[in-house]
Parts: sequence; structure tokens; C-alpha cells
Amino acid sequence: MVTLEDLKQIVKPKLKPILWDDEKNVLTLLDQSALPFQNNYVDVRTPEEASLAIKLMKVRGAPAIGITASYGMVLSLISSKPSSLEDSISILERAKKVLDMARPTAVNLTWATSVMLESSRHAIEQGEIKSVNELITLLKVQAKKIFDDELEAELKMGLYGLEKINDGDTILTQCNAGGLATGTGIGTALAPIRVAHALGMRISVIAPETRPWLQGSRLTTYELMTDNIPVTLIADTAVGLVMYKGMVNSVMVGADRILADGHVFNKIGTFKEGVIAHELGIPFYALAPLSTFDFKSKANDVTIEERDADEVRTVRGIPIAPEGVKVYNPVFDVTPPKYVTAIITEGGIVYPPFEKNSLKLLSKER
Amino acid sequence: MVTLEDLKQIVKPKLKPILWDDEKNVLTLLDQSALPFQNNYVDVRTPEEASLAIKLMKVRGAPAIGITASYGMVLSLISSKPSSLEDSISILERAKKVLDMARPTAVNLTWATSVMLESSRHAIEQGEIKSVNELITLLKVQAKKIFDDELEAELKMGLYGLEKINDGDTILTQCNAGGLATGTGIGTALAPIRVAHALGMRISVIAPETRPWLQGSRLTTYELMTDNIPVTLIADTAVGLVMYKGMVNSVMVGADRILADGHVFNKIGTFKEGVIAHELGIPFYALAPLSTFDFKSKANDVTIEERDADEVRTVRGIPIAPEGVKVYNPVFDVTPPKYVTAIITEGGIVYPPFEKNSLKLLSKER
Repeated sequence: MVTLEDLKQIVKPKLKPILWDDEKNVLTLLDQSALPFQNNYVDVRTPEEASLAIKLMKVRGAPAIGITASYGMVLSLISSKPSSLEDSISILERAKKVLDMARPTAVNLTWATSVMLESSRHAIEQGEIKSVNELITLLKVQAKKIFDDELEAELKMGLYGLEKINDGDTILTQCNAGGLATGTGIGTALAPIRVAHALGMRISVIAPETRPWLQGSRLTTYELMTDNIPVTLIADTAVGLVMYKGMVNSVMVGADRILADGHVFNKIGTFKEGVIAHELGIPFYALAPLSTFDFKSKANDVTIEERDADEVRTVRGIPIAPEGVKVYNPVFDVTPPKYVTAIITEGGIVYPPFEKNSLKLLSKER
Repeated sequence: MVTLEDLKQIVKPKLKPILWDDEKNVLTLLDQSALPFQNNYVDVRTPEEASLAIKLMKVRGAPAIGITASYGMVLSLISSKPSSLEDSISILERAKKVLDMARPTAVNLTWATSVMLESSRHAIEQGEIKSVNELITLLKVQAKKIFDDELEAELKMGLYGLEKINDGDTILTQCNAGGLATGTGIGTALAPIRVAHALGMRISVIAPETRPWLQGSRLTTYELMTDNIPVTLIADTAVGLVMYKGMVNSVMVGADRILADGHVFNKIGTFKEGVIAHELGIPFYALAPLSTFDFKSKANDVTIEERDADEVRTVRGIPIAPEGVKVYNPVFDVTPPKYVTAIITEGGIVYPPFEKNSLKLLSKER
């Protein structure tokens, strides 16, 4: 039986979206805004630079932004060289403000900066550290822990998801729920695929391009090609035919929010994969950390965010439709539990009835 | 009750993809290859120019190509000024070759040029015409008849389809099965919508962009906006959500080929609309002339044509995916009869069981 420790040894993506150099004290980010056309890395040495990289979408995806922000906090002390622990806290407070405003709605961002600030305060109050250098060391350990915890959660999802993959399988995904989005090189929906590939299983992925943002054609293809995992790009219109022709063994997608009753909110286009998979008897799995569960909302309470019409009227700035055409551009859709075979989390696999089983799993994990 | 004659009076699209000037003897084509970015008309005065316009996709869609080719035959005599009826037949034979090779697989093209040539031969043999001028007049009448027959068939489809439309409806379509594709300004799937609009019903259309060729964003939006019919453009990923949210009253699509048992082959992406509509209880109609029925083939016999990978890797020549990424680019898909509520033709509406009822309708029409 494969264990988590085994996976830590063998799952080694070449894809490195976020790198920390502990000697030079530099954070290096793969510029996702330029992918796949340019493979640029940008160096980040201050919290201001980290904030700008988040704002300009050079780094994207909730977990990846959280990791970047936590190193932004480390860099605030290194770049400012405070003379006292008191000064250090002021500097960290200012850095948190600079970082938090980069993407005001990103929950992981403020969560990560809060963890960094509060653990500093706590260690100083408890007398655990005596110098600025000791505080820097502590924060480096804390930032690395945020990264490592994320990586471990994804490998656990990969391990649970592995139960649903057979040698030779082709898996249909949607958008980019991969190592670029999480910053670890592993991902959520792509975690079982990366695990299976590392174990030598023959596995391949079908990536729909995912208009209007093209995360499928720009990012999922790029990250899988980087790690030599076979991937085939299709237009979003071809999602039905590949399932109808028997080319798909299972569907694995990420999730932005999962309700207690199993409604899965994810990138626009996920719903159609759920309905068709259900109709054709193909298993449909949503992969996300337990933190994605929302036990308060009902499906009708959740507002479907709409974005700018020009995202549909243009591609990479080039017009593809009549000027001023009316557009409806929702960012995500909702797949009702009827179409969801199981939800795969770092704590285990949740089967229907989702309400009962997700609560059971969550109470076990806490 | 609304009659076909009523419709001829009131359905007057501003959209004029193909115009024939009977005094100047010029065919004028709306250049569809430049739409919607440029609204250019090109004049055609010879069969060579007509052939080139077809080859360069300035005119596209099977019926539109047939109409263009029939006027190309008229223009061969006008531009060459033959001195005898014998010379005229040689000129028509050469023009037919020039036109037929413009799109070798287009059935409507060779059908139209054959009708023009054979009706010339027949009229000469029967002594019905005595001069080149009389032959030109005959061919002008014949070309106009091809156009008028097409227009009438589409209005009939529109009239039958009207039974399926209620005031205030929003109709989801796919690709461009409109007046641009047929050359008449009416279309097949869009015919009932144009009829309902002309009758003053409040009606609107949701057009998915239809990657990779973007016929939805480039052409369907353009032609409906030209005629002030409300249209909303969506990414192909949003097709499921608009149905799930109750924004769609029915689905109306064209068809490239319909099997006797009701399998509908149409532009890639149609299948997903069929499955989701069926699941959600939304009626799904395929609209096509009776000539679209294929009584010989079985679903598995039909090869799904695949096109060049660069259509998915690029948009308007701009790369949107990693260089060399593997692509699967099927042109059409097949919607099984289970998901098809009815097939609307110029001869009437065919309901399940399709095999029995389509044969019945066809024998009645012949």
C-alpha cells in the first residue's frame, strides 16, 4: 500500500511555481500571466513586490497567493532590517496591510498574513525569541509550514483520489485545478493524476480550454506538459463528444465552494460535465480541501459572480464578436449533488448522502 | 392563422448576404470571412470570381454556396457573350467545372450547377429557346427559383417552428444556422425566431460563441443584431448554467445530417445542449430541410470529421496554448434521438418514433 511518506519521496513535479531561496532570501515566482507564451521567473525581495505580483496576477490561485503573502511577511523584516522586536511588529503590521490589499477578496491571503503576524506576536510575548534574527528564523519556518501543509493536503487528496484511478485511464478535467493554482506544483483535481503518474501508471488528461479565461489551454496543458503527463486540449464544445465516444474514464474537477448538501460551485462549464457524466455513467469527482465546505449557505443563497463582457468579446485583446454585443459572463456554475459521485478531500472521500457524511468527516478531522 | 403568403410579406430581413442586380448583371456578396469586424460587400461578375469567393469563404453555408454557384453559371454567359447556343453550352460546361472545384465536398454546389446546365440543355433540345439572350433569361429565372425555393422552405420551417414558440421566449441556439449560412437572410434554426420577431412577438436568443470557429460570436450575433432581434452572447462553458437558471425556454439548432432513427449530426457542442435540455425538461428541436435526412447510414457508420489542431491552439491567428500541444478537434457531434424532442422541416414537424414518421412525411412530400 502506498503511504503519504512514499508520495513525498516520489511525487516531484518539475513545475515550480513558487521558489524560496533560504540563503539569498529571495522569493522567485513563475509569471503565470505570461504563460504559456513566456516562461519568465520574477524575483521578489520586498512585501511591495510580492503585493504587486499578486495584483498583476503573476501569481494566482488561492493557496498560491497565501504562500506568496507569507513569504512577503518574511521579506518585510529582511528588507527593512529593524533594530528591535518592537520595530519588527510595526513593520509586519505595515507589510500585512500592503499585502492584504493586493486582492481584497482572497481569503487565503489575509489568513496567511494573519498567521504570520500573530505567531510573531505570540512568540515575542511568550519570550520564545530574543532577537530580530530569531524572529526571521521563526517566520521562515512558519512560511515553510504553510507551504508544506498545503503540499501535504494535496498529496493526501492525491492518495485518496488514487483509489478512483485505474491504469490506462483518461481523465477529463476543467479549468486549472493544478499545481499552478496552489503554488505547490501538485494541485487539487490534478493531484491524483500526478500521484498515479509518479507511480508509473499510464494515465492521460483531457483539458477543455475553459473560455473565457482559457485556464485549460494556457495553464493546465502547460503544467502537465512540463511534467510529461500526456494531455490533450479540446474546445469546450467537444466536452460532450469525448464522453459520448467513450474516451473518458472519469471526471475530476476542483471546487471553489461546496455546500453541506453536496452542491459544488466551480469554474463555469463544470455543470455540463456533471450532467453528461451522470447521463453516460461516468464517475464525477470534485477535489478540494475541507476548508472549501460551506455549512451555512443554501444553493440559492450563493450569488454567481459575473465578470466583464469584454472577456467574452475578445481573446488576448483581439475582438472576436460585434462591438457592443450583449454578453452574459458568469464565472462559475453549480453542479447539484445528483451529478456528484464523490467529493475527495485531504481527510478522505465523502460519498452521498453528503450532508451527513461531510459533517462526520469534518468532526473526525477537528 | 398565419400563412406562408403572410410571411412572404412580413419577414423582411435587413440582412442581405447575397444580392443579384438584374439590370447591371452583378452578384454582390456580403464577405462573411471579414464579419463582424468589417461589413464589406464584394462584386462578382464572372464564374471565376464566384468560385474564388466560395474558396475564400467569403460566402459559406451549403445553401448560400448553391445560390452563388447558380448565379456564377448565369455570369458565365453574360461575361463571355457567346455567339451561338452551342457555344453557350461549352461555356456553361467550363463554368460548372470552375465552380464545382471551389469546394469539392459541397453537395449543394454541384447540385446547383447541374440544375443550371441540365435545364439549359433541356430547353435547347426542346426548342423552347432560340437565342443566347433567351437562354440568359431562362437561367436568370432558374437561379432566382433556386433562391426563392430555398427562401420558401425556410419560411415553411419558420412557420412550423412558430408552433413551438411562445411570446417572451428565450431560445438557445448553437453555431450559425441563420440567414448567413443559407444566403437568404432567414436561415433554418433561426427561421422560427425571425418569423416570431416579424409577428411582433417578444423573443430573444442566446448564442454560444461556438469555438473553435466562433460562428456564434462572429456570425449569429451579427445577423441578429442587424435585424434588431435581441441576442446575448455566452462562452460555450456557460451553456449549462443558462439552462439551469431557467433562462432558456427551448433549444433550436440546425443539422448537417439526420439519420432515419433521429440521430442528429450537427456542429460540435450540440450534444451537450441536447443532454442538458433533456435532463432539465427543456424542449430540443433540430431544424433542417428534408434533404438533410440520410436513410442509409447508421450512427456508427458516420465518420466524425476532424480539423486542424491550430484551430484550437489559436484564435484569429493568435496563439492561446503551448506550442505543439496535442489537440483533438472534431467538427461535429451526434445527438441521439432520446434527447431530440422533434425535428422541424419544411414539410412539417417530425416527432418520435422518428424512423416511421420521417418516412411517412417524406413519402407525402414526394
